[in-house]
Amino acid sequence: MSLNFVFIGAGNLATHLSQAIVKSGNNLLQVYSRTESSAKELAEKLNTSYTTSLNEINIDADIYFVALADSAFSEILPQINFQNKLVVHCSGSLPLSVLEKYSANFGVFYPLQTFSKQREVNFAEIPVFIEANSKENEAVLFQIGRQVSNSVTILNSEKRKYLHIAAVFACNFVNHFYTISAEILKEKEIPFDVLKPLILETAKKVQEIEPVKAQTGPAVRFDENIISSHLEELKGVRNFAELYKSISKSIFEFQQQSE
Amino acid sequence: MSLNFVFIGAGNLATHLSQAIVKSGNNLLQVYSRTESSAKELAEKLNTSYTTSLNEINIDADIYFVALADSAFSEILPQINFQNKLVVHCSGSLPLSVLEKYSANFGVFYPLQTFSKQREVNFAEIPVFIEANSKENEAVLFQIGRQVSNSVTILNSEKRKYLHIAAVFACNFVNHFYTISAEILKEKEIPFDVLKPLILETAKKVQEIEPVKAQTGPAVRFDENIISSHLEELKGVRNFAELYKSISKSIFEFQQQSE
Repeated sequence: MSLNFVFIGAGNLATHLSQAIVKSGNNLLQVYSRTESSAKELAEKLNTSYTTSLNEINIDADIYFVALADSAFSEILPQINFQNKLVVHCSGSLPLSVLEKYSANFGVFYPLQTFSKQREVNFAEIPVFIEANSKENEAVLFQIGRQVSNSVTILNSEKRKYLHIAAVFACNFVNHFYTISAEILKEKEIPFDVLKPLILETAKKVQEIEPVKAQTGPAVRFDENIISSHLEELKGVRNFAELYKSISKSIFEFQQQSE
Repeated sequence: MSLNFVFIGAGNLATHLSQAIVKSGNNLLQVYSRTESSAKELAEKLNTSYTTSLNEINIDADIYFVALADSAFSEILPQINFQNKLVVHCSGSLPLSVLEKYSANFGVFYPLQTFSKQREVNFAEIPVFIEANSKENEAVLFQIGRQVSNSVTILNSEKRKYLHIAAVFACNFVNHFYTISAEILKEKEIPFDVLKPLILETAKKVQEIEPVKAQTGPAVRFDENIISSHLEELKGVRNFAELYKSISKSIFEFQQQSE
């Protein structure tokens, strides 16, 4: 079964998801974005049309995918007449119910990954979490999910919110520590390249070993000499000493508990 | 040139480094550890002898590798007579000079990686940082470094300390966030497996894109609705809300600066 889609939003997630859906043999009728350059770029890539005007959104789609920043929902969605077609959002943190005022048919399609436009991802490996207002809509989303991914799970809004929080720690906060380490190296003119094998191995390790058991380094031993010498070095460098202290403390507490 | 080694210490680092050195055609004469089970395990793996007694340390080695916790140096090293043989430590945070009272020949051999005994690593890909008290000793360490790794860099003690701090952020602190995310999922009975592709992709991304440019998620947009809803959910769960807040703030400050 081939379905007709419209994408509301043309950011990182929209770019990758719409591509995967088209590859699976569905039709992308149109891309909408407030930002013309984004709408145009994605539409051209997928050989379809685009609009920046809410009045011109194609009314013939079977499914409308909403891939907007959470904060844009309440501004943009009331201006679209979905005619009770299936409307689906892709947000980890918003509940299913935010869509109930816009259509009689609605659902959530949440692919758990970090997307950047310039980076290819293998969509098949991305876990997708779905939820819908009815068994029928759930079945439609499940089918689309299986077309693009090997892993599709039905998950309610409350659990999805926690999943999103966990992802913020495991991805955004992790990436921030990569950023901090890059900053520390830059000040000493050491190339960031030297950290790359360590970063990759740290991520690979927890593919096999439970993270709490994979922990190494001064904080897990609570090596006070190293910790206080590091704090001394970080003094006055942004808020790094403060972060270093609170995280070392947190690591030690966790390890104590898990032993 | 094949050299004779003794390893003082039989932990994670000693296990992997001694193995790599033996594989390169050198001779491991002996392993010392206070913990008999560790000494025995490593010695048996590499078909050599071991001791738990400092008086019985083999005096015929060309090089003594000290792979101890930093805090054990001052207790153990004064009890060994190194007869001015080359003594080498593997610590990121201790300066070269901590060894000067134990021998006339000394150096540092710091492989930048996270080691766990149960996990194989490809030593050739690990960047090694060396430092020595003389050009001659530096040349010996450089040669050993090149036998085991594709990347050997001469780095002084001060820079090595910062490299170590950067590694604590990029590995130990990162792993702690994996641990926290696992904990959050456990409470909601969601398997940690679902985060594994995200964790791997986050690490792979910064192999190619600068970390500050790879950042995604609510903090980079400073999406206050999401952030405050996440803080609400984390209330009372250990110190997670506090960590969440300080790191989100830090991410936002970084992004503002880099734009």
